[in-house]
Amino acid sequence: MIKKILIANRGEIAVRIVRACAEMGITSVAVYTDPDRYALHVKRADESYNVGSDPLAGYLNPRQLVNLAVETGCDALHPGYGFLSENAELAKICAERGIKFIGPAAEVITRMGDKTEARRSMIAAGVPVTPGTEGNLADLAEALREAERVGYPVMLKATSGGGGRGIRRCNNREELESAYPRVISEATKAFGSAEVFLEKCIVNPKHIEAQILADSFGNTVHLFERDCSIQRRNQKLIEIAPSPQLTPEQRAYIGDLAVKAAQAVGYENAGTVEFLLADDEVYFMEMNTRVQVEHTITEQITGVDIVREQIRIASGLPLSIKQEDVQHQGFAIQFRINAEDPKNNFFPSFGKVTRYYAPGGPGVRVDTAIYTGYTIPPNFDSMCLKLIVWAMTWEEALDRGLRALDDMRLQGVKTTTPYYQEILRNAEFRSGVFNTSFVEAHPELLNYSIKRKPEELALAIAAAIAAHAGL
Amino acid sequence: MIKKILIANRGEIAVRIVRACAEMGITSVAVYTDPDRYALHVKRADESYNVGSDPLAGYLNPRQLVNLAVETGCDALHPGYGFLSENAELAKICAERGIKFIGPAAEVITRMGDKTEARRSMIAAGVPVTPGTEGNLADLAEALREAERVGYPVMLKATSGGGGRGIRRCNNREELESAYPRVISEATKAFGSAEVFLEKCIVNPKHIEAQILADSFGNTVHLFERDCSIQRRNQKLIEIAPSPQLTPEQRAYIGDLAVKAAQAVGYENAGTVEFLLADDEVYFMEMNTRVQVEHTITEQITGVDIVREQIRIASGLPLSIKQEDVQHQGFAIQFRINAEDPKNNFFPSFGKVTRYYAPGGPGVRVDTAIYTGYTIPPNFDSMCLKLIVWAMTWEEALDRGLRALDDMRLQGVKTTTPYYQEILRNAEFRSGVFNTSFVEAHPELLNYSIKRKPEELALAIAAAIAAHAGL
Repeated sequence: MIKKILIANRGEIAVRIVRACAEMGITSVAVYTDPDRYALHVKRADESYNVGSDPLAGYLNPRQLVNLAVETGCDALHPGYGFLSENAELAKICAERGIKFIGPAAEVITRMGDKTEARRSMIAAGVPVTPGTEGNLADLAEALREAERVGYPVMLKATSGGGGRGIRRCNNREELESAYPRVISEATKAFGSAEVFLEKCIVNPKHIEAQILADSFGNTVHLFERDCSIQRRNQKLIEIAPSPQLTPEQRAYIGDLAVKAAQAVGYENAGTVEFLLADDEVYFMEMNTRVQVEHTITEQITGVDIVREQIRIASGLPLSIKQEDVQHQGFAIQFRINAEDPKNNFFPSFGKVTRYYAPGGPGVRVDTAIYTGYTIPPNFDSMCLKLIVWAMTWEEALDRGLRALDDMRLQGVKTTTPYYQEILRNAEFRSGVFNTSFVEAHPELLNYSIKRKPEELALAIAAAIAAHAGL
Repeated sequence: MIKKILIANRGEIAVRIVRACAEMGITSVAVYTDPDRYALHVKRADESYNVGSDPLAGYLNPRQLVNLAVETGCDALHPGYGFLSENAELAKICAERGIKFIGPAAEVITRMGDKTEARRSMIAAGVPVTPGTEGNLADLAEALREAERVGYPVMLKATSGGGGRGIRRCNNREELESAYPRVISEATKAFGSAEVFLEKCIVNPKHIEAQILADSFGNTVHLFERDCSIQRRNQKLIEIAPSPQLTPEQRAYIGDLAVKAAQAVGYENAGTVEFLLADDEVYFMEMNTRVQVEHTITEQITGVDIVREQIRIASGLPLSIKQEDVQHQGFAIQFRINAEDPKNNFFPSFGKVTRYYAPGGPGVRVDTAIYTGYTIPPNFDSMCLKLIVWAMTWEEALDRGLRALDDMRLQGVKTTTPYYQEILRNAEFRSGVFNTSFVEAHPELLNYSIKRKPEELALAIAAAIAAHAGL
């Protein structure tokens, strides 16, 4: 069994992993760069080490992180999500240095990270993929030929891309011509690879992804699906499990496809197979070879602790559940509370959290690394809190979401909270039938007026009186 | 459907009811006495009214509360637990004034509140009760005769008692002679009734209670049981659902008994039937005709929202679940975090909460009315927070409990937290086999040393340096 884990991440996911370690009797080691000196993951871990003054470099240096794991006596490394979580080099160095990488093997990360390679694997396994190019594109001329073949609109994609970046929709020949050099340039900068490929654009699909777990004994299970259709510019905002818009047959079909996809590539550990749904057709999109931000909602509906399972699998233990034992109950919704101003084009709103009070009561879970007095640094992702609600029915989950968002106090920075409250009141969202065009199709949901809480109002009035009185 | 509810309570249960109202689109009305001016239930409710300067009187005046409900346009009143929750007079006045009392009918409260009457009802319904007197005792002579008949030790009990008060164990004739006038005196002062009765004392039983829900259409279901054996002086400290020490057959038997008990008295709304278990025998102890402090753990294992069901029932709606649909998954444990110093004989530790940070992450629920800067008033119960953990297995729930207690920050008052951590590490407790003698049998669990959190230690050191330097 693993005894000590270096957590190569920060923020709420680092805290999530610290908690799993604490519950399993495993020593946790945090790393942090200078702006994260007062971060919660540092306070909560058993040990913590500074990995440099540059905000990001220390989180992105595989060799340095593995060296630190070895030096501090760790026997495993958890990469979290983002940062180096899908970096095959990190997995490779871990293997070389005798540190268990809590994730799949380096070869599998490479294979699924290469989107054309992943497509080929899926086609071979009988998993449906979007019509598109066999491999990478040689040049613009080939791109134009392929686009004619599959039909516009098409998606031009960076082969090494992910997380919604390095992707461009092209509605016609002209747009493809202008996008081609741009995507190559973006891909080179963001992912260090100029390779691109092309797929038919599935217009206004639903984004449905299935969580899988696979151990080293050949057991692979799925934990049903998540509906991540509520996105803005390919960034997920609200995630739901299970999807309120699947039939039981579709649910079973997608779960089975995900298991098939994982088995086809010899997958081990936790992973997510993402699909697009349109007109009752299901298309493989990509596989994320790591724990996801939204793993929480799957935990809420199934009771399975995904991070615990990840650590068990890496320890060489079998899965603690069989497919026939995995049940789902109720609905869970996750709200990614971002420190952004929705009214100002979602511009980041970093700074000091002057007051934070967690929502509580039945069916409410919070995963966050913020606290009153914490300053959200401008160097990282703007997501500062994950609010997860669970209830027995879809409608109760919606109402619980409204209540919990209202229950929370998070002051000092602007957040996406009031925007989510508007979404929760929207009839189309409440109907449970929506696709990835929802956010763009509903700009009116940004026209909210901030309802002040009574205590905030009292403070504001007091401040105004004091200012007027020259106090 | 009920539209506006007066919440005749305070603290975490008032907040719990405010939350249920918010989720159901019901307007909530809070009441408060002067010491509760800054209480969370006042801040969170839609409306709130001061019911006097005396700390307690306003919470204990049925007529004044019902008048306020009528004046503020409420159509229902929720009594919570404690205070007037089992006061038949309140239910009666509500009925007279056209306010729906969220609980059973006044006659049922009276019947179950009278412990000898309750015993008679249970015997008639075929529910096993402890051997004891048929009715109330006429005098000491009868008490001594009855004690001889059932055999010592015996429990002398106030007929109108409850919540662990007005009860005395008598091991022999001499103890009964001395206890008799004392219990009568206590009962007269605490419950306004001098009636007492006597039961055989079940030595070191397990305390097992079953949650029931009954609607006005004759549907009665049970939501399985809770194990409340971890008590100190008849006050519950840690509650568990389901009991880790019942067989499935015992579980089914107790659930069925509870339904039978409720149906025998025409029970409506949520209630709890408490049993004692010893040597595989089950004895009815009492019925609590209200929501209980520990209803939370039943919600966690079944997914049923008990306060929502209470409000639905009072609104004349049918139960939202059938017995065959009620499933339980995993284990939930509730820790009653009391502002008390376990090392000083659990002496209350009221005062200002200088820092509070809620534990979070998977399987953690918090119900509380405290916040940073809140002063816990000395006028009320010392319970300041309910920490509830859930996990798939008993062992994981124990480890999650340890993690969550460690994760929480609650400074400024002493609490029972470190004592609970010791209990969670105790092998007997972890084995899942224990009875109501556990706390008394393990005084060594009070010999903990407080482990300072790093940040507290840093502050303490800084303060010491500053003091030394004469700063």
